[in-house]
Amino acid sequence: MDRLVSAPIRLSDAQRIDWLRLIRSENVGPRTFRSLVNHCGSARAALERLPELARRGGASRSGKVCSLDEAEREIEASGRLGVTLLAPNEHGYPPRLALIDDPPPLLGVRGEHEVEMRPMIGIVGSRNASGVGLKFAQTIARDLADAGFVIASGLARGIDQAAHRASLSGGTVAVLAGGHDRIYPPEHESLLASIIDAGGSAISEMPLGHSPRARDFPRRNRLISGTALGIVIVEAAHRSGSLITARFANEQGREVFAVPGSPLDPRAAGTNDLIKQGATLTTSAADIINAVAPIMDRPIELPMEEDDAPHEGHEPQETDRARIVGLLGPSPIGIDDLVRLSDTSAAVVRTVLLELDMAGRLERHGGGMVSLN
Amino acid sequence: MDRLVSAPIRLSDAQRIDWLRLIRSENVGPRTFRSLVNHCGSARAALERLPELARRGGASRSGKVCSLDEAEREIEASGRLGVTLLAPNEHGYPPRLALIDDPPPLLGVRGEHEVEMRPMIGIVGSRNASGVGLKFAQTIARDLADAGFVIASGLARGIDQAAHRASLSGGTVAVLAGGHDRIYPPEHESLLASIIDAGGSAISEMPLGHSPRARDFPRRNRLISGTALGIVIVEAAHRSGSLITARFANEQGREVFAVPGSPLDPRAAGTNDLIKQGATLTTSAADIINAVAPIMDRPIELPMEEDDAPHEGHEPQETDRARIVGLLGPSPIGIDDLVRLSDTSAAVVRTVLLELDMAGRLERHGGGMVSLN
Repeated sequence: MDRLVSAPIRLSDAQRIDWLRLIRSENVGPRTFRSLVNHCGSARAALERLPELARRGGASRSGKVCSLDEAEREIEASGRLGVTLLAPNEHGYPPRLALIDDPPPLLGVRGEHEVEMRPMIGIVGSRNASGVGLKFAQTIARDLADAGFVIASGLARGIDQAAHRASLSGGTVAVLAGGHDRIYPPEHESLLASIIDAGGSAISEMPLGHSPRARDFPRRNRLISGTALGIVIVEAAHRSGSLITARFANEQGREVFAVPGSPLDPRAAGTNDLIKQGATLTTSAADIINAVAPIMDRPIELPMEEDDAPHEGHEPQETDRARIVGLLGPSPIGIDDLVRLSDTSAAVVRTVLLELDMAGRLERHGGGMVSLN
Repeated sequence: MDRLVSAPIRLSDAQRIDWLRLIRSENVGPRTFRSLVNHCGSARAALERLPELARRGGASRSGKVCSLDEAEREIEASGRLGVTLLAPNEHGYPPRLALIDDPPPLLGVRGEHEVEMRPMIGIVGSRNASGVGLKFAQTIARDLADAGFVIASGLARGIDQAAHRASLSGGTVAVLAGGHDRIYPPEHESLLASIIDAGGSAISEMPLGHSPRARDFPRRNRLISGTALGIVIVEAAHRSGSLITARFANEQGREVFAVPGSPLDPRAAGTNDLIKQGATLTTSAADIINAVAPIMDRPIELPMEEDDAPHEGHEPQETDRARIVGLLGPSPIGIDDLVRLSDTSAAVVRTVLLELDMAGRLERHGGGMVSLN
């Protein structure tokens, strides 16, 4: 069991509805959700100010705000599927996931909540894996499960499937790219049922009814790495999705373990490259257990949410806004650079960016980089 | 071409005979050869003092000293085979080999001398290599040869053979464990002939007529790594001879490149372990070329030999000798520790160790460690 420093919180029913409405509103993602709550003091206050912020950001029309009715219907439908919508710091929300830059404000959790609270290792890899790759994924998943780790993976064909199956008895978590009622690939519905039956769980940040699109898979991958102490890449060709997971893991400060292969095997090209770039060469569960042992001993200090003290008081002047927008373009620029170049305060820059966000004009990249759409 | 700082030397005929007599005498190896020349001032002076040193070291009978006649016959027979006996710093003696702790005082070189002066990479690996391993060895040997490197290897079956064959046109060096007239395995006589015909060479520190014994192969491996900027281990099981070459390379400050493989392939167990321990994961010649490029630019400063100024004047007292011998036992101890514990000078300890060496009572290990036989 991971050690938590801060006490778990619990949202009120009204708060949960507000949070769901905010994250399901147009132009709001996990990052803007957090900015809005920080700026306005609460999700409810943010919902009220969305139209005004979007207008200031230059939107011709206001983005669609999720209605109370829609939010209530999603919570009800989720309940019928056995899915609970949990906020960071609530019991059942993976503690490490709450620490990433852009944690889902509400995570749909189906199945056993307790499993989310245990130390996890992600195992990912090729969908068209080799026999040797599948066998290795099974071995390492079983050995890690026997050592007390929960295995997180993406319910895909190939390595993911092998890792889930081999760790059923130890508890395994399927991280979904679509809504809980839109399992991909569809033939893995039965694998998911086995996972839930065996005391594992499935998590998703997407609304019910959302079929996963291509761009949802990389987004989902940040949750696989984010929940885990580290991730194991078993087989990966150049430019494969597993390498995106490895990149997220690096950005999130998670350990990256890569399984080597022959230079003549294209399915090992990605993993060999990862090792060249500093990933830990992994041939057995012991390699992983030894590396994460010191990290597991460090307590997890969760950030607090909804302090109800709006960080306003730094309302941008029209000239500030114009100067900051003028500095932005299609090439990503660091927020720190924007503050320096615009000669205003960080608070003012953050507010202008939030307005642009709400107007659908801003794109946020990793590492505090932003660009205009 | 490697850049040399010191001018090449050339032994006189009389010196070469003295050097050969000394290195072929009983209880004299490359390390003791150097100690003797340093202690006595020259190989000739050392030859004269061998019986006295052995007696002081506690030998009941004096070790056999190689006669003038035997040495002359070896030089003649070598000449008939096209083998020249070269000292460190002589043209045709691999410059980097002269820099190791225990370079052969005389190296038998057959074939093109020029090839020894060019930058070398060693390629070694399993005798019972897989098809993929053999193919990779060929590819990397050819690519390195195309980039101007000479390939050094051990003329063994499997990876060695593949590396030599693929680099014939670029020049390749076979490093032998036995004498030049005792090729192992015998069926590789024709491979060796191709190497010589193509402008490559073969080197050995062993006398003619010496058939390689099991213990000669690890000893030979230090020459493969010692001649090279770095070595590539293509396939190696746990506890294989290639790992000994890697250990020598590390001790000699050479780069170690290892080719990864599946954790389920026992022929990759050794190379994967090497990468875990810090060897460079290698999937292409570029990995090697990039790593050795900065080293190649450093000029090689060769040590001088035969300064004719004997380092005596620190003749041990009988009490010193007894104290030092008393500190020695079957477990290796560092020479530095011996100096400290015996409360005498380093010069006295070195002289006593030399006497014990000549009496056949001392074993020298790597890293300045010694033990009693």
